[in-house]
Amino acid sequence: MSKGESTKTVILDQAIKIASVQGLEGLTIGTLADSLKMSKSGLFAKFSSKENLQAQVLQAAGEMFRRSVIYPTLKAKPGVKRIQTAFHTWLTWSEANEIPGGCLFLSSSSEFDDRPGTVRETLVRFQNNWLKLLNQITEEAKATNEFKSKIKSEAFVQELWGIVLGYHFYNRLFLDLKAKDRANRSFTELIKRSLNEV
Amino acid sequence: MSKGESTKTVILDQAIKIASVQGLEGLTIGTLADSLKMSKSGLFAKFSSKENLQAQVLQAAGEMFRRSVIYPTLKAKPGVKRIQTAFHTWLTWSEANEIPGGCLFLSSSSEFDDRPGTVRETLVRFQNNWLKLLNQITEEAKATNEFKSKIKSEAFVQELWGIVLGYHFYNRLFLDLKAKDRANRSFTELIKRSLNEV
Repeated sequence: MSKGESTKTVILDQAIKIASVQGLEGLTIGTLADSLKMSKSGLFAKFSSKENLQAQVLQAAGEMFRRSVIYPTLKAKPGVKRIQTAFHTWLTWSEANEIPGGCLFLSSSSEFDDRPGTVRETLVRFQNNWLKLLNQITEEAKATNEFKSKIKSEAFVQELWGIVLGYHFYNRLFLDLKAKDRANRSFTELIKRSLNEV
Repeated sequence: MSKGESTKTVILDQAIKIASVQGLEGLTIGTLADSLKMSKSGLFAKFSSKENLQAQVLQAAGEMFRRSVIYPTLKAKPGVKRIQTAFHTWLTWSEANEIPGGCLFLSSSSEFDDRPGTVRETLVRFQNNWLKLLNQITEEAKATNEFKSKIKSEAFVQELWGIVLGYHFYNRLFLDLKAKDRANRSFTELIKRSLNEV
């Protein structure tokens, strides 16, 4: 890694932290420069616009998500085991120190769902890829005969997504310490309903 | 209603529309004055600060929520019927013309969950009241003997909340037209699992 690249990594790590707390809209070249004690003009030379900075922050957060969630999911055995890995790594990835304000994708989604542009497109592309992967691993669980053939993967995944969103909401807004246990139990119950009877 | 009050209603209705699309942080006295073709100083005299404007917008949105969701819920027969009314009015209230950007409470929650202050407090108070009411009507469904006595209302309500959040996410970010049907089916299934066997 060149010196320029490693500086950029340091900058983007800090930018992710700010955006996870303040929202992507709260992240400006000015606030980032202040928190890094760098000059605004130096940062501007690297990112040229707020929108470009936001898009690069999403890219960097996407890389974190791949490392923490997608790779472990793909390494797990296809079928129920892989779905369990996807769910558990997804539920816990936003507890990482790197993102003190919780999942950047979820918070950015409500910020940007009504605002067309590069940021919304990047967000939708990432989440669409994750959605496709979840649908695919649900189909795999049908192919391994663990899941009932009548399970509709789109319905299964929307329900799974709802459990994760419910957890984040209860955890971050209500600061409810039991939210995670409940999410885990709902997930176990969802899996149980989907399994073929033996 | 005095002239001053009706002007304020017009202003707050417009403010709710802007906030539902741009987020509460995107709503400033400046953007509101522009969209209403009013003077910034006149609006400033009415609201005195951005934070006060945001809090009043949440109050006004809370009044809409009471009219559209809470009152119909309380009018419904206690038990499963009341839970169904709560779910259906909640799922559809954000489709109202008054809030083109969808549920203001959900989007504000990810904006403000990490930012202490009046806005977060107002948000949490509203959502806590709604949470308590949902828990209470779930207890009622146990009291009427429709729900199994072993159902834990907190777990039931977190799952319900997840279904509503999942719907909003799929609807607004993925623009998925089937999201509502799936949410309705998940809800029906959740009720079915909770019912006493006859």
